[in-house]
Amino acid sequence: MTKTLGEIAALVGGRLAGDAAIEIRGATNIEDARASDITFAVEPHLKEAGKCAAGAVILPDTAGVFPKPAVYVKEPRAAFACLLEAFTPPLDFPLGISDLAYIGAGVQLGVGVTVMPFAVVDAHAVIGDGVILYPHTYVGQYAEIGAESVLYSSVTVRERCRLGRRCVIHSSAVIGADGFGFTTSKEHIHTKVPQVGNVVLEDDVEIGAHVGIDRATTGSTVIGRGTKVDNLVHIGHNCRIGANNLIVAQTGISGSTIVGDNVTFGGQTGTVGHIHIGGNSVYAARSGITNDMPEGVFCAGFPTQPHQEWLRTQAALKKLPELIKRLRELEKKVVGYEAKEN
Amino acid sequence: MTKTLGEIAALVGGRLAGDAAIEIRGATNIEDARASDITFAVEPHLKEAGKCAAGAVILPDTAGVFPKPAVYVKEPRAAFACLLEAFTPPLDFPLGISDLAYIGAGVQLGVGVTVMPFAVVDAHAVIGDGVILYPHTYVGQYAEIGAESVLYSSVTVRERCRLGRRCVIHSSAVIGADGFGFTTSKEHIHTKVPQVGNVVLEDDVEIGAHVGIDRATTGSTVIGRGTKVDNLVHIGHNCRIGANNLIVAQTGISGSTIVGDNVTFGGQTGTVGHIHIGGNSVYAARSGITNDMPEGVFCAGFPTQPHQEWLRTQAALKKLPELIKRLRELEKKVVGYEAKEN
Amino acid sequence: MTKTLGEIAALVGGRLAGDAAIEIRGATNIEDARASDITFAVEPHLKEAGKCAAGAVILPDTAGVFPKPAVYVKEPRAAFACLLEAFTPPLDFPLGISDLAYIGAGVQLGVGVTVMPFAVVDAHAVIGDGVILYPHTYVGQYAEIGAESVLYSSVTVRERCRLGRRCVIHSSAVIGADGFGFTTSKEHIHTKVPQVGNVVLEDDVEIGAHVGIDRATTGSTVIGRGTKVDNLVHIGHNCRIGANNLIVAQTGISGSTIVGDNVTFGGQTGTVGHIHIGGNSVYAARSGITNDMPEGVFCAGFPTQPHQEWLRTQAALKKLPELIKRLRELEKKVVGYEAKEN
Repeated sequence: MTKTLGEIAALVGGRLAGDAAIEIRGATNIEDARASDITFAVEPHLKEAGKCAAGAVILPDTAGVFPKPAVYVKEPRAAFACLLEAFTPPLDFPLGISDLAYIGAGVQLGVGVTVMPFAVVDAHAVIGDGVILYPHTYVGQYAEIGAESVLYSSVTVRERCRLGRRCVIHSSAVIGADGFGFTTSKEHIHTKVPQVGNVVLEDDVEIGAHVGIDRATTGSTVIGRGTKVDNLVHIGHNCRIGANNLIVAQTGISGSTIVGDNVTFGGQTGTVGHIHIGGNSVYAARSGITNDMPEGVFCAGFPTQPHQEWLRTQAALKKLPELIKRLRELEKKVVGYEAKEN
Repeated sequence: MTKTLGEIAALVGGRLAGDAAIEIRGATNIEDARASDITFAVEPHLKEAGKCAAGAVILPDTAGVFPKPAVYVKEPRAAFACLLEAFTPPLDFPLGISDLAYIGAGVQLGVGVTVMPFAVVDAHAVIGDGVILYPHTYVGQYAEIGAESVLYSSVTVRERCRLGRRCVIHSSAVIGADGFGFTTSKEHIHTKVPQVGNVVLEDDVEIGAHVGIDRATTGSTVIGRGTKVDNLVHIGHNCRIGANNLIVAQTGISGSTIVGDNVTFGGQTGTVGHIHIGGNSVYAARSGITNDMPEGVFCAGFPTQPHQEWLRTQAALKKLPELIKRLRELEKKVVGYEAKEN
Repeated sequence: MTKTLGEIAALVGGRLAGDAAIEIRGATNIEDARASDITFAVEPHLKEAGKCAAGAVILPDTAGVFPKPAVYVKEPRAAFACLLEAFTPPLDFPLGISDLAYIGAGVQLGVGVTVMPFAVVDAHAVIGDGVILYPHTYVGQYAEIGAESVLYSSVTVRERCRLGRRCVIHSSAVIGADGFGFTTSKEHIHTKVPQVGNVVLEDDVEIGAHVGIDRATTGSTVIGRGTKVDNLVHIGHNCRIGANNLIVAQTGISGSTIVGDNVTFGGQTGTVGHIHIGGNSVYAARSGITNDMPEGVFCAGFPTQPHQEWLRTQAALKKLPELIKRLRELEKKVVGYEAKEN
């Protein structure tokens, strides 16, 4: 696939500086770009981009004169994302329901659905228009998959769970396994509490590989519209996660926790259960959230502190062995005075 | 499905306060309950339950007069669990072996086994009575699945592993992948040590989604009777976990570690390998266990401390930056005295 | 399978001490060994091995006289690994392509390939000689699997990813899911950046169960030759991991991080993205690496410190509550002097 730089500028709505006839064959990162590629750069990478091998560069419209052919745009990342899509040839999937898939009794299939070999859509499930089910997906009884959603290979959506429109579920994610709920006798015997609720993903949710979102004991575990969940995240039963969260890899959110909108959880964060976490907040990687949290904070640590305090505490911590020495010395001196006084 | 409140009281063996003829159509939590539902409450939620929309409430028999129709029982949670089951209609699975499943040579199948489409039972495996295998499960050669166990979609049980009776294995769990065992040369080349042991799950074990329990190098990795394992837990090769443990999400137990009975590991806990962890203990979330541990402790932290000490340490830690200031001030004063003295 | 002790000594190239005619039927660990088994021991386990039930023991050639029949070798672990393999009968897999597998258009299959029931090799994939694909594996379009690699059940290799020779991928691992890349508007709407790169595993890489290695945004995420990755590890998009690393369970390496050769990451380690981590290093369990790191270090903690310093800091930390008391006492005394002076 080849596009001229003029066509590219038009495609991303940018201002061209250089020869409109230059031919570009791919879009890639600065390090890997060759003369036939276009790349993008923002500060502090502009200098590096000026010297790289790429044939042209997407730049922020605030950037000055540049040593290479360039296209100036308001949001270079978004423009580059658009070009990545334009230069990647689509895969070659036969549309329709594979003869090797299993479709249960009473299933409703929308228009333009793709079901690949060995996918299972169990009885009474509802599959929206344009949904793509990769091999080895399992959609349980009475589950609903919203229009234009994609389920990659080996995804499980258990019975009665509901996905909104345009959800993307990566391979081996499990939506709706039983919550971890038991009653324990005095003899330490754990008896299962039936987990008869479900999971609801609202529209535009993306779920990473190996994510587990447990079904509610009763009612629903909910992931809000536009929230994106990275790999290997655990979300316990009856959680209600707001809209537009970013939940980075290996985070664990314990059961019945309620999270507001626009929250970012750094990687390997953990929370206890049954708390409220306010919206519009950022938790640094490996935060351990043990209490209700207000809106609009930037926290770190376990238990969490304001991020600045946490930085000071960690810096102080490294001085601790030296501190102990200084304290001991001071004690000796003061004991010396006491001896003199008496 | 509809039950009268009188029928419900009889079903859970409770004392009825209110009209026995009230019709109940579902059991759910306080927040989601409507007038046709029954819910349950224990302290400190009794007040909230008194004002909720539910048509009736299950209460502890120690609770007093209540503003709604109620059923008083000894253990409200257990009674509620029983009602959840009663009100959830069972799913509609055709019994028997699907024509679309693969059954290898020499497999032994018990009575009343369900094998769903695209499940694989490999050669010489033994499947007990009443076992349910969901789509895309893989049971390896010579593996044994105890009676009445359920394997959800995409579960793997590798060759020669053995599951007891009534085990529940959630989607995408992997029982018996190779342990992480290598010999390393001076040139840093890692050579695989064959992992020829297996995994044994005793009766009534429940394993969460994406749990990995590695097969032993030789002998068996063992999970004791009645132990429940939450999502995304890692258990290394040759571990021997006791009975009735609760292992919460994202915990990692390194190889050859031996754990007693009745231990609870909070979420994101980690242990080193080759240690003994005594029974009847609780480890708080994110504990890091680096040494042999006695029976009957309640610990937290990394390395672990008694939980009360850990709380004190964490509280002290937040004062550390201030502490450094105070120490510096004291040092100045003492230097001042020294100057005067001389 | 039975071998004489003489045959065993010859097989591992060791020095026999004892009756060459002794018959051995299995190789296992000290605890489980019976009279018909051979086991192995190195310090500090030699004494224990002398008293165990095993019929013979593999020993280091530096060990002295021993109370049991023994075979002395330079590397007992390697010799034992060799015996484990010799005594474990191979499983019984029909060679060739199962009638129940799906092979897409334009797929290239090498010589001696095994594809088990319900595996999917999608269009244009290339499968090397001697590759084994277990049930429910998915090899995406244009993906390449190097010769003699093994993919266990439910493994996903997404489109265009490339595996080297002799790779071992454990069940439910996902190679090439989309990286976690979004652009975020002022209104907190996250828009997906297409992830059009791939993942490249070099030769002799082993990947544990439930590992996720994300495809690059553009270019490749690379795992170097001979690197071994334990269960439940996350490796973000555009990482470049060197050769012969050992990455222990539940570690997370954030996107665009570059790691040298011969690095060991202990379990539950985490790194931020976009950093360089030098080779020939060891990071203790649960390290949190937040900055570029030089070659040849042994570190621990979050943020990381040299391991010895970390041990001192942790020891000091436990004394912190007591320290605060001592400081308070000292302050009182000094205030006392001040009062006297004035």
